[in-house]
Amino acid sequence: MNTIPRPSATQPNAALYRRLESRVRSYSRAMPREFASASGPWMMDSQGGRYLDFLSGCSTLNYGHNHPVLKKALLDYIERDGIAHSLDLHTEAKTTFLEEFDATILKPRGLSYKAMFTGPTGTNAVEAALKLARKVTGRHHVIAFTNGFHGMTLGALACTGNAGKRGGAGIPLSHVSHEPFDGYYGPKVDTADLLRQRLEDPSSGLDAPAAILLETVQGEGGLNVASPRWLRKIAAIAKDHGALLIVDDIQAGCGRTGSFFSFEEAAIVPDIVTMAKSLSGMGLPFALTLIQPNLDVWDPGEHNGTFRGNCHAFVTATASLRNFWGDPAFSQDLQRRSQFLAERLEAIAAACDVPAQVKGRGMIRGIDVGSGARASAITAAAFELGIVIETSGPHDEVVKVLAPLTIDDDVFANGLDLLAHAFRSTGTQPLDAAA
Amino acid sequence: MNTIPRPSATQPNAALYRRLESRVRSYSRAMPREFASASGPWMMDSQGGRYLDFLSGCSTLNYGHNHPVLKKALLDYIERDGIAHSLDLHTEAKTTFLEEFDATILKPRGLSYKAMFTGPTGTNAVEAALKLARKVTGRHHVIAFTNGFHGMTLGALACTGNAGKRGGAGIPLSHVSHEPFDGYYGPKVDTADLLRQRLEDPSSGLDAPAAILLETVQGEGGLNVASPRWLRKIAAIAKDHGALLIVDDIQAGCGRTGSFFSFEEAAIVPDIVTMAKSLSGMGLPFALTLIQPNLDVWDPGEHNGTFRGNCHAFVTATASLRNFWGDPAFSQDLQRRSQFLAERLEAIAAACDVPAQVKGRGMIRGIDVGSGARASAITAAAFELGIVIETSGPHDEVVKVLAPLTIDDDVFANGLDLLAHAFRSTGTQPLDAAA
Amino acid sequence: MNTIPRPSATQPNAALYRRLESRVRSYSRAMPREFASASGPWMMDSQGGRYLDFLSGCSTLNYGHNHPVLKKALLDYIERDGIAHSLDLHTEAKTTFLEEFDATILKPRGLSYKAMFTGPTGTNAVEAALKLARKVTGRHHVIAFTNGFHGMTLGALACTGNAGKRGGAGIPLSHVSHEPFDGYYGPKVDTADLLRQRLEDPSSGLDAPAAILLETVQGEGGLNVASPRWLRKIAAIAKDHGALLIVDDIQAGCGRTGSFFSFEEAAIVPDIVTMAKSLSGMGLPFALTLIQPNLDVWDPGEHNGTFRGNCHAFVTATASLRNFWGDPAFSQDLQRRSQFLAERLEAIAAACDVPAQVKGRGMIRGIDVGSGARASAITAAAFELGIVIETSGPHDEVVKVLAPLTIDDDVFANGLDLLAHAFRSTGTQPLDAAA
Amino acid sequence: MNTIPRPSATQPNAALYRRLESRVRSYSRAMPREFASASGPWMMDSQGGRYLDFLSGCSTLNYGHNHPVLKKALLDYIERDGIAHSLDLHTEAKTTFLEEFDATILKPRGLSYKAMFTGPTGTNAVEAALKLARKVTGRHHVIAFTNGFHGMTLGALACTGNAGKRGGAGIPLSHVSHEPFDGYYGPKVDTADLLRQRLEDPSSGLDAPAAILLETVQGEGGLNVASPRWLRKIAAIAKDHGALLIVDDIQAGCGRTGSFFSFEEAAIVPDIVTMAKSLSGMGLPFALTLIQPNLDVWDPGEHNGTFRGNCHAFVTATASLRNFWGDPAFSQDLQRRSQFLAERLEAIAAACDVPAQVKGRGMIRGIDVGSGARASAITAAAFELGIVIETSGPHDEVVKVLAPLTIDDDVFANGLDLLAHAFRSTGTQPLDAAA
Repeated sequence: MNTIPRPSATQPNAALYRRLESRVRSYSRAMPREFASASGPWMMDSQGGRYLDFLSGCSTLNYGHNHPVLKKALLDYIERDGIAHSLDLHTEAKTTFLEEFDATILKPRGLSYKAMFTGPTGTNAVEAALKLARKVTGRHHVIAFTNGFHGMTLGALACTGNAGKRGGAGIPLSHVSHEPFDGYYGPKVDTADLLRQRLEDPSSGLDAPAAILLETVQGEGGLNVASPRWLRKIAAIAKDHGALLIVDDIQAGCGRTGSFFSFEEAAIVPDIVTMAKSLSGMGLPFALTLIQPNLDVWDPGEHNGTFRGNCHAFVTATASLRNFWGDPAFSQDLQRRSQFLAERLEAIAAACDVPAQVKGRGMIRGIDVGSGARASAITAAAFELGIVIETSGPHDEVVKVLAPLTIDDDVFANGLDLLAHAFRSTGTQPLDAAA
Repeated sequence: MNTIPRPSATQPNAALYRRLESRVRSYSRAMPREFASASGPWMMDSQGGRYLDFLSGCSTLNYGHNHPVLKKALLDYIERDGIAHSLDLHTEAKTTFLEEFDATILKPRGLSYKAMFTGPTGTNAVEAALKLARKVTGRHHVIAFTNGFHGMTLGALACTGNAGKRGGAGIPLSHVSHEPFDGYYGPKVDTADLLRQRLEDPSSGLDAPAAILLETVQGEGGLNVASPRWLRKIAAIAKDHGALLIVDDIQAGCGRTGSFFSFEEAAIVPDIVTMAKSLSGMGLPFALTLIQPNLDVWDPGEHNGTFRGNCHAFVTATASLRNFWGDPAFSQDLQRRSQFLAERLEAIAAACDVPAQVKGRGMIRGIDVGSGARASAITAAAFELGIVIETSGPHDEVVKVLAPLTIDDDVFANGLDLLAHAFRSTGTQPLDAAA
Repeated sequence: MNTIPRPSATQPNAALYRRLESRVRSYSRAMPREFASASGPWMMDSQGGRYLDFLSGCSTLNYGHNHPVLKKALLDYIERDGIAHSLDLHTEAKTTFLEEFDATILKPRGLSYKAMFTGPTGTNAVEAALKLARKVTGRHHVIAFTNGFHGMTLGALACTGNAGKRGGAGIPLSHVSHEPFDGYYGPKVDTADLLRQRLEDPSSGLDAPAAILLETVQGEGGLNVASPRWLRKIAAIAKDHGALLIVDDIQAGCGRTGSFFSFEEAAIVPDIVTMAKSLSGMGLPFALTLIQPNLDVWDPGEHNGTFRGNCHAFVTATASLRNFWGDPAFSQDLQRRSQFLAERLEAIAAACDVPAQVKGRGMIRGIDVGSGARASAITAAAFELGIVIETSGPHDEVVKVLAPLTIDDDVFANGLDLLAHAFRSTGTQPLDAAA
Repeated sequence: MNTIPRPSATQPNAALYRRLESRVRSYSRAMPREFASASGPWMMDSQGGRYLDFLSGCSTLNYGHNHPVLKKALLDYIERDGIAHSLDLHTEAKTTFLEEFDATILKPRGLSYKAMFTGPTGTNAVEAALKLARKVTGRHHVIAFTNGFHGMTLGALACTGNAGKRGGAGIPLSHVSHEPFDGYYGPKVDTADLLRQRLEDPSSGLDAPAAILLETVQGEGGLNVASPRWLRKIAAIAKDHGALLIVDDIQAGCGRTGSFFSFEEAAIVPDIVTMAKSLSGMGLPFALTLIQPNLDVWDPGEHNGTFRGNCHAFVTATASLRNFWGDPAFSQDLQRRSQFLAERLEAIAAACDVPAQVKGRGMIRGIDVGSGARASAITAAAFELGIVIETSGPHDEVVKVLAPLTIDDDVFANGLDLLAHAFRSTGTQPLDAAA
């Protein structure tokens, strides 16, 4: 297969979108094309253009687009009138998924979780986790972290750090405080120690938390990585203070960091784990809240939702677990590819005429170029070359590479070459004052 | 086709579900079977049993299961590697849906809305509507109604009346008050007048609202129907007091009441409309918030979400609009079938040995039997006969019939005969004290 | 003593006040004089003017200004270095007050309350009551009423109906809803029944309340009077639903309605009673929250405050209880004077050229003239005649007479004559549109 | 005068208090005597006992009890029927106070504030300050600090750090976060820098604040002293981020730290200052919120309250300003006495057999003995010797000396000798595990 993207030059239907779609649309502004089909790492627009996907639906397409194994499983299911929608009734598709998830993911890792199928959005999985933590503990306060991103509905949004998103609520967001993430105050300050000090002080004003909610790698917040040591300290703090530890593995999970769960490296066992994005494997809406069995104190239907049993997603998710996670070669390949990515990004950063820092872990990495304007200029230049890529971070200052985990080596290499070119072509002139 | 259900007697995999799925599961408790496939009004379990679906995914399957036209459209799309997941990028599938929705639904009704694709759950569409109303008005308070149901995430949950669901929040729900719905205080009290009086009193303690949020038929709240006159009064109150009128058409929309939008009969034009459930036509996760163009003050990305462009759902939704709503015969058929349902339910209610009242409108109707225990006994008896059916109402006291809008007349008649039998067989002995 | 007021014409020190006192000052705007001394119903300004006090510090001066018995008690106490400030230590002054309050007020009425001395403001007494109700019940929601007024600190302000005051919070006020007061929807709607219906409906959206908080006569809200029957219904609702009944007797208590507690006529026994204003007898800051002994679950110091033991106020309060409430003649006199007031106001209202309605009970009565502008014109005209008097109600449309309970008959009659003159002189021309 | 206390041995009326006063009473538990009169630093109980006051009403009695000059002014005022209660009407007493405060306090310091007389409690002054800051900025969030204490009503309580007090609210406290105070994380971490970093990060989750609220010395929180440098940094942060700086000078103001305002040493000019406690000079309820003139955007009556014009307090406050603050000798004396206190406490701490640290500034100082149980044992021993004294700090681990500013040198020395004896007599055995 040809490994070079071939972008189109123009955007059809712009007027239609202006007239009929809300101004809230966002990705389509920086990447104004009309996409039609997609396969593996490639996205095709309606004018015959072809793009290499270094965004992967923000880590929703870890196995690429329309992977043939997943596609076939779904086609077969639909062909034979497999039930598509069943509220939360038991279905064959759900049974099979639960068995596969238990056998392929949980048991080999010595984990024991119960699955709660929430509404099929990450934010809904987080809302369910927060509700449960508050019910279990009888407490209201939740500790989240600087630069955390957990969703857009009011409960999850209160845990999200971004001021623009928060402002959208139109009301003050309550019952959550944001503590400094690992490394937030620089390498000399251990922010876990700061948190412990305040929780141990009955007069600190920090209410006893129902939960501590975190991402191990902050995908939207700038690819900040929590160290295993810090994660273990936070887990210990949660335990000591009667709070549940919730790991939001929506963006970093499903292999993105190199293991199925992002917290495996730290050897912690969260009380609750939220999953979504790549869980279905094919980009279908699907979310899951994993709960330690002893914490499963829900009343029947206490949290519900129409689409909490997306059978199509059960089918593709099961296929993805079988196809990828049952095979040790997949994980090994992933390690190798992550290493390759790290090296290439280090080289690109080193060649930068401005200070640039590689951030992230596994296959969720990027380069902090110190300025949102500069990062946007780079991603815009990359898009002109046919690379679908986005920024991250509080000032959008990180160029973020989220390639499919399954990308071919030569395609990946070519894509990174083009990215390097975009970096070079963007130059070093000062781009903004606010950086 | 045989028109008689053929239920199985046993439930496989009960132990697996107890071990691996959270206690929060609900429908599977009253209907413990493992479903495998489904077609039109029929659901098949994994043991060869067949059930008639009078639940329709709580109005998510208005066109039945796996309708051949929708199924074909989806299969074709997947076969040709149609893009499945694209965040909120423009796609051919989205373009086509917008055009079709505009041409088939909006224009013929003289409506002009912009589409906001929220996370693909009803609750997310409601959260977006609330945010926007608060942003537009600069106010925080929202008026919802007794027995309203709007979702499970914190913003929408605050608008939901059910105490059990509300309690699940684990924190006090704020910024919303619940006013009495139409008819709540009996036929002599016009609750719209009560609301107007308090809004006009600067010392009533009722804060000026950002929005008035309502369902025209309360699907979960007991099939309470708002009269066109009351709806027009509420719309006028909203306008006079600078509040946005939000109609939550998630359960009552997409034809369930006889017209595409449930508010058409009242000739009101809401400022915002939320849709989900049957919008995709095939039960796929999909939600939409419709916004009057002048109110579209969102900043790009101010509300976002991973799955807000579910392309599979765009494809089936477009097919459903073309296939059903482009043809006047569909609407006429719907009127006839609704009338048939009304008559049969009146006959069943009249034959009841206890006071029983038919409620609802169009194809969302049921019988209030005055007791949750009695209603559950009836739906349990019906399930034994092969009817998938549920209750509704504050005390679960309404047996609710949500058949596919497209159900064949003879199948429908047979199903209602079986329901009548379930009513008769349940008898008239007093069932609970709390009723 | 001469019974005719003799107002001054000018205001000294206006510039000083503009420069040094916040714009938040209010009464001084309508009555711009500098007051210097006061005795009984008379207020003297610094220019020799004399005014008849029909405001009584909003019912804080029920026994008039500087009553000689109270004054002597206080002078003696200060002379002998009686302790002025003692935090919440035991003091002779407090002991004596507790004994006197128990013997003179509680025991004769068959009541048994424990006294909590809160910070010496009514709002603080209300905050303490709310905290305790929430602690006792473990619930957060409080039911208050339309046009209720309970104070300006955030907890009490949330219970206050007035939109202007509420807006001052700068944040949304939460955890309280305002139900329609007795008669709010006219004589045909029993608002207690409406409340009961919603509380008995598990899907009404009205959270189970920690407390129902009310004034029996709404002093600021327009002199709306709750009937004994309605009060008993509300008390029964509170009991049936596990909520505490809190009567805010800050303005209506201490004899203002004819009995020491305003709720005596209704023969209800609140769980908590808040008092302030006339409790000290002499206008000194003093507040008290009375608690049924079985509800006294406070931890030591859980609610505290610097001035919660105002010994000067203990001394004058004790003197007022002894002097007035130990003597049955005081109560009889009060009944007679209330009757006289009612008759005179009815005559004034009947003589009005616009519809005018007498409202209130006991010695807290006024005339609703249907327009805030008209009412203000009347009180302004009265002030020109030497009457200190204010308005009340959601639109300030009630001219409110709050004379000292102890006012001499002839002085009272002369004052009411002058008020009648002010009514006449203000005429009948339409005064404002918004009325 | 004899300089030695002479405590009584027993407590009269204990049964009466248990029966009639709420369990919420606190100081009377550790110091169970019935106090009757007081003069200067001395408190006399009803059994003839005499106590030296090292508590001073928690800094409410900075000039001692019943100071003859203040007492005479008040007696004269009452004798001549000076108006006691006037709502917020202009009065001679208020005029005189405003003139005196402006001339003696504000002008010599180059300050220009407008006075807002709030309800006469510190918590009410804080509530007013918070409301105004939110109104001025249109923001909701307030930044307070660890171990801060600002009052018990909901708005102020949300700013208070103590978990026990916070828990009393019965509802989650919102719209406030508590940042680490100066020195909270030890000498190497500049907590002002940490705050600035988070405010400058648009994704930190810390909402833009309406106000930064602090005490310069945390009286209840353990006598933590903010350095002038840190205060200037915080003032600069507030300015840079559009937040108002509110200094709560309720406990530390009125000379307690050596100057009238506690923030004079740091040469900052707060936007708002709250005062209460010693403002009246004689322990009478009185509170004041000082506002920069350009921030005085209140609507008339937007915050009000019955007792916001306590004329008796105006009279004694004016007398205290004239008598003490008009005379430079008073300030010089204060410096000398503070120095003496510091030296004596250092000596006591040095003699301790356990690690003990002197904290505080000016005449608000104490010794941290590392354990609440130990500190309580010391204050109990001191009380047996006739010293009224209390603890402070998150674990009540600081023995706090709050003597009158005006105490005679020999009385002070004798009292500190007795305190030293109490320290010695309490010994060094381990007292509690939680320390």
